[in-house]
Amino acid sequence: MNINGTHYTTIWMTHANEKVLKIIDQRDLPFRLTIEEISTLDGMCTAIRDMHLRGAPLIGVAGAFGMYLALLESSEMAPDTAAENAKKKIIATRPTAVNLVWAVQRVFSVIQLAKSPAEKIQAALSEANAIREFEIENCRKIGEFGLPLIEKIAGKKKGAPVHILTHCNAGWLACIDYGTATAPIYAAHDAGIPVHVWVDETRPRNQGARITAFELGEHGVPHTVIADNTGGHLMQHGMVDMVIVGSDRTTRRGDVCNKIGTYLKALAAADSNVPFYAALPSSTIDFSMSDGIKEIPIEMRDENEVHYVTGMSVETITDVRITPKTSKAVNYAFDVTPARLVTGLITERGVCRADETEINTLFGKKCPPASGMSGVP
Amino acid sequence: MNINGTHYTTIWMTHANEKVLKIIDQRDLPFRLTIEEISTLDGMCTAIRDMHLRGAPLIGVAGAFGMYLALLESSEMAPDTAAENAKKKIIATRPTAVNLVWAVQRVFSVIQLAKSPAEKIQAALSEANAIREFEIENCRKIGEFGLPLIEKIAGKKKGAPVHILTHCNAGWLACIDYGTATAPIYAAHDAGIPVHVWVDETRPRNQGARITAFELGEHGVPHTVIADNTGGHLMQHGMVDMVIVGSDRTTRRGDVCNKIGTYLKALAAADSNVPFYAALPSSTIDFSMSDGIKEIPIEMRDENEVHYVTGMSVETITDVRITPKTSKAVNYAFDVTPARLVTGLITERGVCRADETEINTLFGKKCPPASGMSGVP
Repeated sequence: MNINGTHYTTIWMTHANEKVLKIIDQRDLPFRLTIEEISTLDGMCTAIRDMHLRGAPLIGVAGAFGMYLALLESSEMAPDTAAENAKKKIIATRPTAVNLVWAVQRVFSVIQLAKSPAEKIQAALSEANAIREFEIENCRKIGEFGLPLIEKIAGKKKGAPVHILTHCNAGWLACIDYGTATAPIYAAHDAGIPVHVWVDETRPRNQGARITAFELGEHGVPHTVIADNTGGHLMQHGMVDMVIVGSDRTTRRGDVCNKIGTYLKALAAADSNVPFYAALPSSTIDFSMSDGIKEIPIEMRDENEVHYVTGMSVETITDVRITPKTSKAVNYAFDVTPARLVTGLITERGVCRADETEINTLFGKKCPPASGMSGVP
Repeated sequence: MNINGTHYTTIWMTHANEKVLKIIDQRDLPFRLTIEEISTLDGMCTAIRDMHLRGAPLIGVAGAFGMYLALLESSEMAPDTAAENAKKKIIATRPTAVNLVWAVQRVFSVIQLAKSPAEKIQAALSEANAIREFEIENCRKIGEFGLPLIEKIAGKKKGAPVHILTHCNAGWLACIDYGTATAPIYAAHDAGIPVHVWVDETRPRNQGARITAFELGEHGVPHTVIADNTGGHLMQHGMVDMVIVGSDRTTRRGDVCNKIGTYLKALAAADSNVPFYAALPSSTIDFSMSDGIKEIPIEMRDENEVHYVTGMSVETITDVRITPKTSKAVNYAFDVTPARLVTGLITERGVCRADETEINTLFGKKCPPASGMSGVP
């Protein structure tokens, strides 16, 4: 999508120099646009570990290119040994990231199958590029399948903007392009349908206020940032036409685990008859789980994310503490929205109701491989 | 309640010097405890206007003492003229504050009835003190009536702490002492019942993270600050035994208008069968209104409260911006929780269900005077 009129993705290389990856260093957003060049395995590990980039699809792709960079550097080491070492090192940067393991393993496999060192390097590059293209295409399809849902509402509103509420950042900056929750929104905007997005700021890390507001603004999508407390009031007063959120994990019966606070918005949507959609690649569907509230473990993060807020003071990015020094805080990162509150799932294969039968019809029980990634070309 | 082991109220004078009011300057909390001395009408107007103090009961009492200070200063003016001028000036500091008008008018009336200048000064002081005592007593009674609700839960928990979630600050720092939502909590804590409070940080102004966490911590009540997004998850997992919030305005059928985000917690409480109480003096019941969502106007405040967060950076209290410079924000300050989601109202006359019949039984249709303050002695 666009930044200041130019099309960007979150990770890319130029044909002129296939030894350097470029990424957007997201730590500085929305205050500064920093493009970082990475040409070493260590550089890529640092970028993943220290969250220069974030979002499950994006860190998977970053890890895949990390494998390729490792081979480029491995002149003094047998390429298979270098790949084995790099795999361990990359996976250790974000130990709970399922996509990272899957993507790194995939590149590792093609390296093992290729014969000469030169072929191994070429195979690693091709595979990393294929994973990147796969992630872009999934998001593009989610946009394509979500677009008619917005068009239908737009038809009823006769030219008035369609008001869409979203929570956290399930945007192109968490993916490679398009995003998941944002893909239908960009598709509608680019098709000339007037849309306006209510952006939950999404405490404690403010991914909405910082990242989603930035990417919508740069692509020219009208939006308004709100405190996380506000969505219920807006829905009571008919100011929200639909909710679209992402999903970090979706159970086979359609429970949606997403950024903490999603559940509260789903309750409000149900209470005011506002449709509530989760947009997700099928890789997030965990067919081993049924009851999300009972079965999905919720990550507890550092309580300092609650105590402190990061922002721009004069020209410096700084942290301010908002709580008393003696108060404790707790920082659950996600919550689970039960399927009964979800109007539908928007996926790369189409839209379905959030129940086991419809999910199975769309994906088939055997479709997603054990890694959790389905339909990988 | 206590700060660092000493009992404080939010506004007081010493017997040694009845010409000076002392207040806690709340703008510096929780980072610094600043006691401000006010001996002039102008000083009190500044304190109210610039929110050195906040909370409906407290600004009413501050306004009442402002009338008294105006008379002390009025040597060159007829006391009735001074009172008339002071009344206008004080009311103009917070034009929408119903309590302020009521309290100032009450002191103004006794000034008019008294005869000599000396008697007028004495009458103003007595009346301001009476209003202060009245507000303290209302909160004390709310604590008394709310205590059995906590005791009942404690009885079932056999020594484990009762987990109470609250939103915003309806604490003693918004009142004179005890608070409204916090009064039953302090009563339980002081009675030796183990309680633990989940404190919603309450964006955008963070009154929970800053004020409620401070006052609970200083009084020794165990508490944990959470992002506003978190309550739903806690309730899904049985980690909240009850919710107690304040109310800025309550309709005759029991709809509760309170800080934005209250409604989302009420939805979550209903979804997980957690009792949800609003604690309020009957002065907040507006018998002229029935449907709170349709009838109560919601204040929209400065969008910069969403764009910026105030906190402590190194040793300086500072603001940091969290949104892109080009993004808009919107800042609704309150929302309305429909009566169907409210388990009960805890008032200075007892606890009742949130419906018109029970509210009328407790208060009688004619009880609250037109000003909105009921049962004023």
